[in-house]
Amino acid sequence: MKLATLRTAEKGTTAALVTGSDSYLALPASDVGALLAQPQWRTIVEKVATAGGNAISGVAFAPLLPRAGKVICCGLNYGDHIQEMGRDLPEFPTLFAKYADTLTGPADTIHVHGSVKVDWEAELAVVVGSELFRADEDEARNAIAGYTVANDVSMRDWQNRTLQWFQGKAFDRTTPVGPVMLTADEADGDFEVRGYVNGELVQHGNTSTLVFGPAKLLSYISQFTILRPGDLVLTGTPGGVGMGMTPPRFLNDGDVLTTEIDGIGRLENHFRIHAPVPANV
Amino acid sequence: MKLATLRTAEKGTTAALVTGSDSYLALPASDVGALLAQPQWRTIVEKVATAGGNAISGVAFAPLLPRAGKVICCGLNYGDHIQEMGRDLPEFPTLFAKYADTLTGPADTIHVHGSVKVDWEAELAVVVGSELFRADEDEARNAIAGYTVANDVSMRDWQNRTLQWFQGKAFDRTTPVGPVMLTADEADGDFEVRGYVNGELVQHGNTSTLVFGPAKLLSYISQFTILRPGDLVLTGTPGGVGMGMTPPRFLNDGDVLTTEIDGIGRLENHFRIHAPVPANV
Repeated sequence: MKLATLRTAEKGTTAALVTGSDSYLALPASDVGALLAQPQWRTIVEKVATAGGNAISGVAFAPLLPRAGKVICCGLNYGDHIQEMGRDLPEFPTLFAKYADTLTGPADTIHVHGSVKVDWEAELAVVVGSELFRADEDEARNAIAGYTVANDVSMRDWQNRTLQWFQGKAFDRTTPVGPVMLTADEADGDFEVRGYVNGELVQHGNTSTLVFGPAKLLSYISQFTILRPGDLVLTGTPGGVGMGMTPPRFLNDGDVLTTEIDGIGRLENHFRIHAPVPANV
Repeated sequence: MKLATLRTAEKGTTAALVTGSDSYLALPASDVGALLAQPQWRTIVEKVATAGGNAISGVAFAPLLPRAGKVICCGLNYGDHIQEMGRDLPEFPTLFAKYADTLTGPADTIHVHGSVKVDWEAELAVVVGSELFRADEDEARNAIAGYTVANDVSMRDWQNRTLQWFQGKAFDRTTPVGPVMLTADEADGDFEVRGYVNGELVQHGNTSTLVFGPAKLLSYISQFTILRPGDLVLTGTPGGVGMGMTPPRFLNDGDVLTTEIDGIGRLENHFRIHAPVPANV
């Protein structure tokens, strides 16, 4: 099954079951996160799928999890990319946090104010389906609700101002997530992750080369903090980011960033790069 | 005025006005964050202060902001400490994020599982009182609701596993916050911040030596993400952390950590350091 969060006419959102290329059945929750917070969410979706329900089409996708309590990201996680950079594989995952305000919809225009080094990071994201605390890898695997597509868009000038990346990773409404969550029971094996700038392929990786796979990551994080239904874990990006190019390459005003995972879906975001902030901040 | 979040008999919490050393008047909000979310919060408090209300005593403090949307922390911010370490003053604040799950009450026992390098960071924390987005320093100053005491307890073994500090800073229920918020109108000038381990003074600084003061920090953060009423910004810690001692010193099972700011209040937290997590995580 594929689930989505749709923008409704009343400026609210609704969770929905995807039934076709532009057809959905409304689910009784304001978004996919609120749906997952109901322990019987699978039964709820199956009932709607069987009995039918309120059909929707012609609407826009919201961020999949507009109110995610935790958005935890992993850096330096693709083995082939790490090795091509001449580094050793890490013993522990490099983790950092975002807030729900950082997220935006899969087709939203992304406005960036105050950065001139806007870079891309195409990623598989894992949606948590049940509470996890100090869980082992098997428990973590069973707690995965599904998978979605994200782009950890990074303001490299801000990211590299200090040792901690947070300020370059947490600009409001700059991380697109969606368009849908593919439920874990229909995801077998690994995913191809691709990123394109104005149609040109710039990133390509397979999640089989992740140093810390989804279950391992969730288990690790749950050793120190509880994960709840609707929390989101971004698994890191393969090689091909703009910062790593010679010369470095960043997004320009008007560029289109496409992020694609076979079997899940595609983000397509236009960028507006606005003037930098005044020098005194 | 001093405001607090108290644990009530029904396992819930209530915001309260502090009227004496163990006397409070209940305020119509579940916690200080929920109170600040009401634009007329000052009027609400003044009415209760004048008209009287439900008197409370003999109850425990909850974390001041148990549901804070954002908890953003600044590192490397005390000029005297940075200069004693032989470093240059930073041009930009070093920022990282926590979640509300990281917070705990000002007298709560703190249980740590899986770390053997538990360190202290006594800090002044700033409570946001109104929305801020791309605000200048004056707007930021006017948006400060008040000040409280925090200790950014840090699991140095986890913090130093990777380049990003998050995992060592975000153990659930390890950052005590409270006991009260001193409203900004009653805070004139700078604060003395002190940390004690088992009664021994280990940290002492004055917020006059902050490189980035409260208004500057809030203005800076608001350039990339919105701050809302009840959000919390930790301003960094002065010299004297255990990691910087020769030899390094960390908290032991049974230790008591006291964090004190003149004019605001004191945190007193007993520590229980439990066995490390298994080697496979």
